[in-house]
Amino acid sequence: MSLRLSLRASRVAPSAVREILKVAEQPDVLSFAGGLPAPELFPVEAIARAHAEVLARDGRAALQYSTTEGFLPLRSWICAHLRGQGMDVDEDRTLITAGSQMGIELATRVLLDPGDRVAVESPSYLAALQVFGSHGAECVAVPADEQGMRVDDLERIHRRRPVRMVYLVPNFQNPTGTTLAAERRHALVRFASREGIAVIEDDPYGALRFDGEPAPALAALDASVVVRLGTFSKTLAPGLRVAWASGPKDIIRAMTVARQSIDLHSSTLAQRAVARLLEQFDYEAHVQTIRASYRARRDAMLASLQVHMPAGTRWTRPQGGMFVWVELPDGVSADELLPVALQQKVAFVPGSPFFAERPRHETLRLNFSNRPPELIDVGMARLGRVVTSRLLQPSPDYAAG
Amino acid sequence: MSLRLSLRASRVAPSAVREILKVAEQPDVLSFAGGLPAPELFPVEAIARAHAEVLARDGRAALQYSTTEGFLPLRSWICAHLRGQGMDVDEDRTLITAGSQMGIELATRVLLDPGDRVAVESPSYLAALQVFGSHGAECVAVPADEQGMRVDDLERIHRRRPVRMVYLVPNFQNPTGTTLAAERRHALVRFASREGIAVIEDDPYGALRFDGEPAPALAALDASVVVRLGTFSKTLAPGLRVAWASGPKDIIRAMTVARQSIDLHSSTLAQRAVARLLEQFDYEAHVQTIRASYRARRDAMLASLQVHMPAGTRWTRPQGGMFVWVELPDGVSADELLPVALQQKVAFVPGSPFFAERPRHETLRLNFSNRPPELIDVGMARLGRVVTSRLLQPSPDYAAG
Repeated sequence: MSLRLSLRASRVAPSAVREILKVAEQPDVLSFAGGLPAPELFPVEAIARAHAEVLARDGRAALQYSTTEGFLPLRSWICAHLRGQGMDVDEDRTLITAGSQMGIELATRVLLDPGDRVAVESPSYLAALQVFGSHGAECVAVPADEQGMRVDDLERIHRRRPVRMVYLVPNFQNPTGTTLAAERRHALVRFASREGIAVIEDDPYGALRFDGEPAPALAALDASVVVRLGTFSKTLAPGLRVAWASGPKDIIRAMTVARQSIDLHSSTLAQRAVARLLEQFDYEAHVQTIRASYRARRDAMLASLQVHMPAGTRWTRPQGGMFVWVELPDGVSADELLPVALQQKVAFVPGSPFFAERPRHETLRLNFSNRPPELIDVGMARLGRVVTSRLLQPSPDYAAG
Repeated sequence: MSLRLSLRASRVAPSAVREILKVAEQPDVLSFAGGLPAPELFPVEAIARAHAEVLARDGRAALQYSTTEGFLPLRSWICAHLRGQGMDVDEDRTLITAGSQMGIELATRVLLDPGDRVAVESPSYLAALQVFGSHGAECVAVPADEQGMRVDDLERIHRRRPVRMVYLVPNFQNPTGTTLAAERRHALVRFASREGIAVIEDDPYGALRFDGEPAPALAALDASVVVRLGTFSKTLAPGLRVAWASGPKDIIRAMTVARQSIDLHSSTLAQRAVARLLEQFDYEAHVQTIRASYRARRDAMLASLQVHMPAGTRWTRPQGGMFVWVELPDGVSADELLPVALQQKVAFVPGSPFFAERPRHETLRLNFSNRPPELIDVGMARLGRVVTSRLLQPSPDYAAG
């Protein structure tokens, strides 16, 4: 007799995007599908030195079990960094996590019960939708535009049937690249505070701003209702799996307890190595280097889209981050386009899986951080040809008519 | 308005043991409370060299995002190691985890729905009970003796009301130090296979056998119903958070999908560093060194208990691992003894939290891996005095009478 999966495990499908990525990562495909930072910018030598120093000086402590809360000097650095951005935070309200993804998981566990409603941007970060679904929460899609989530729509949706939590990526959103406008930030936090709704501010990309002025962090507007997730994955390296969550003390405490039963704590060595690195490394200068590189890549992508995409194609113009969001003309389906694109050795992620409700099949996501400008142009030329040739084909409706 | 915790978060209390450990770790307390390996045996230099080499040779890949399944050469080493112990396993049926704790979490997610019953040894590993509770499963305590879980009792319990999963630590159990007898292993796997019940074989200590012959792994008897958890935490170092789960292909696949939404994957660097270490390091000789050291500590503890504990005290004689389990005479409560012991600068963990049902308050757990023999003797002398003086006091009943 073979084993039966739990009902909740049978409900969870493997990520469609991860399956696409496997094909897209073939060496001759120019892939804009992933969400990878540029590895040539990883501070490999500084990371190696930090590991060597920590192991030479405190090797036994760095390899032993440690507290779930995380290495105190690392939490102190993070808190000082956040206070510099106007947030009221301290070490007791900060938990080291193994990636922001874990912050989403932990916040969901301690804030949502099965059947609870969580409001998300439409579209939203796919792996967050998967967390909410795996815990039996109901995702409610809130309309979003170039200014981010429509907070007026959120309030209307909540009046009709209450939501318990709001999840959003306020800066250079994944997948759209858009940023939540300052006035909407104030409106969102006022609303959440009035209604006792938790706001998960997932901010992996906030440090990667190329133009414009930063809007205030939601956590800086009202720390009592916001759980904020930050990470070193986009500014140092994702392979270290060092990130953090900060928020109200009782919520962070509950997340810490929940985390004890998931994996006890983050790698002691990785936490100490990152803390050591931050003591001796010009983090701000390093992030500035990443910004300059990614800005050039974003510029290349926007310029190439202008040159190569047929009329009627629309795309976002992100002020930072890693992604551009594209709407194809005349209802061309990105899902149907993908196999053709892969034949032409260019890859993207179709937009439809990012929608909690009413998927828009004419959308797709492009990543610009992982390829140099010249390859971005080659890739967009390939993509432009694929879209254009699709437009020239008789549509199935015409063919049938 | 402040935020409300989810019902499931409000149900989960912080671990009583972790609270005890905070007091026990004061520098003048001789603590036998934790479950820490001996840090002086960590192969610090070999781990440092492996990190340095990986970062020098493949730094960019070692710091990038990677697959959820884990680094293939590491999985290959693990599979070869397990096949050497008679297990039928391959890379497709092996997932790298961030500690065995995560294996318990993932197996629970994909095998249990809320309300399902999971059979555990009485007593059982505390943090496993917490995982089952946090997922709304019902823990059913199966009697256990010096030969481990009573499989006849398990079958009787299952006939009365079915269990969906069995969790156990078959070798040098936490907290009791006992080992499941070979004939019970065969009986358990036959029963599980016949009834389609999943067996979680949690084996963090199996490599640490000091005497006697190893019994076959449950996974070696019938790979179709056993999810086996292994780890480098006790043989290399726990701070790396590198462990693994192996089992039926569809279960490992579902655990991999579940893990995507928890933290994407284990540290790329840590996995590659461990794989590199295992290429150039005499792992077997290193484990042999640990065994020799821990054997001397176990011997010291058993001898010291014999010298210092009052008549009527009983304890287990583990053939390996890290723990001895003690039953105090005349119903002395270990919970009540602990504050007195802490005053006398010796610490242990009371046994009661380890029981899923009907806690036995006269029990306690002692760890022998984290102190040298001479300090073990000092600690047991202190503990013996505390127990003896307790026996000489009038009990509360007499005082009231």
